[in-house]
Amino acid sequence: MADYKLWNALKDAKKYRWVELSHSLNNESPYWSGIPEGSVELAKTVWDWGKPELECLIQTFKFPGQFGTHIDFPGHFIKGKALSEKYDVNDLIFPLVVIDISQQAKKDPRYAVTVEDIKAYEAKYGPIPDGALVALRSDWYKKWPDMDALSGIDAEGKENAPGWSLEALEYIYKVRNAAANGHETLDTDSSAVAEEKGDLACERYVLDNDKLQVEVLANLDKVQPAGAVVIVSYPRIEGATGLPARVWAITE
Amino acid sequence: MADYKLWNALKDAKKYRWVELSHSLNNESPYWSGIPEGSVELAKTVWDWGKPELECLIQTFKFPGQFGTHIDFPGHFIKGKALSEKYDVNDLIFPLVVIDISQQAKKDPRYAVTVEDIKAYEAKYGPIPDGALVALRSDWYKKWPDMDALSGIDAEGKENAPGWSLEALEYIYKVRNAAANGHETLDTDSSAVAEEKGDLACERYVLDNDKLQVEVLANLDKVQPAGAVVIVSYPRIEGATGLPARVWAITE
Repeated sequence: MADYKLWNALKDAKKYRWVELSHSLNNESPYWSGIPEGSVELAKTVWDWGKPELECLIQTFKFPGQFGTHIDFPGHFIKGKALSEKYDVNDLIFPLVVIDISQQAKKDPRYAVTVEDIKAYEAKYGPIPDGALVALRSDWYKKWPDMDALSGIDAEGKENAPGWSLEALEYIYKVRNAAANGHETLDTDSSAVAEEKGDLACERYVLDNDKLQVEVLANLDKVQPAGAVVIVSYPRIEGATGLPARVWAITE
Repeated sequence: MADYKLWNALKDAKKYRWVELSHSLNNESPYWSGIPEGSVELAKTVWDWGKPELECLIQTFKFPGQFGTHIDFPGHFIKGKALSEKYDVNDLIFPLVVIDISQQAKKDPRYAVTVEDIKAYEAKYGPIPDGALVALRSDWYKKWPDMDALSGIDAEGKENAPGWSLEALEYIYKVRNAAANGHETLDTDSSAVAEEKGDLACERYVLDNDKLQVEVLANLDKVQPAGAVVIVSYPRIEGATGLPARVWAITE
């Protein structure tokens, strides 16, 4: 029998750990309050059992693009920029870099990752490789599906969640040539940064620079900080500013 | 700098060809006539540009589970059987076997693949490996998005499309230990088989045996008949009998 290289490579790949990085979604899963109610309707029966023509069950699925673990395209924040159809499947597999700010976030829930945090990572694990997806581990995913806990809403209605700083994003994109960033929180910006700028300025920076981001990730504490590979996949729907994504890592 | 095995493996994988096997979907994409009209509503704006709170665009997406290139779970045809949530990401990557019946289908558009066709493949390329996704190449994907052409509707309203026979499915699942089957056509069964049985008997066989199938595939003429790897991915939505899938092959 012929020896097929890729079939052998698949066997080798299966020996690693495959870690699900997406939340499981159902009709109770939360979404941003700016989106109208009724925007989620999953598994609605449109062809039921018991029809003489064909015995089977067919459903429809409705959800916002920014639902659960999702990918955002540049056109989400910048009119006219790239949408879902621009990306091929091989644009959506990356070396995964996981920066751990879970301890800092425990002390200060508005913590914004610093350039120093990233340099400390690089001193330990080596430089962020070209084309990486750089993800922030905050352990915030453990708060899913409690939207108030994820936002860190306090008695005054202010949000308190950790996230990115503009300087850290500039570092990963300009000094290193990252392709995408990710986080377990709802927003790119730490609440402190968003409040100071009066906008989601970090998210706008990412998308205005034609980079991609993956939000509301899960399980970043279960992968190696360096050396894992991450795959981001979404149904091949055109014209989307964002879509729920299936995201997983292959890791040692 | 540390030498990360999986980061190097990713660089190697990128040297192969990555072939998109899913159709691109929009509001004009067809779906089965048994599904009520209005079941597709993609990229509907629910948060528009120009709001003072946040300058961005958010949409909703609605579609049937069996829309475009899609995966079917056993619960689609058999009440109580497994649905979308049963499968992990590492259950959805397979050695890809492509059986070419495009010449036979050109002569007879109701052609059903035979056990002999599959044995002829095996004589040339070696036995179907354990856990394979076995896909039928018919070149039928070139008819997308013309639903009538895909069904092969004739003057009498009868369907004429190639597909599987029960014997061929029994061979790949019982004699070989395949995990899934796929095809470029709308249905598993060739029109001749479906008519004879008065049911989609082949599809029912696959799903009743807890196997998976991927329908309305594209581009099977662009991958190697043996030695490629195929990835099938869908958003992590619970309770689905089927979902549009992003499917791609990595091939020499």
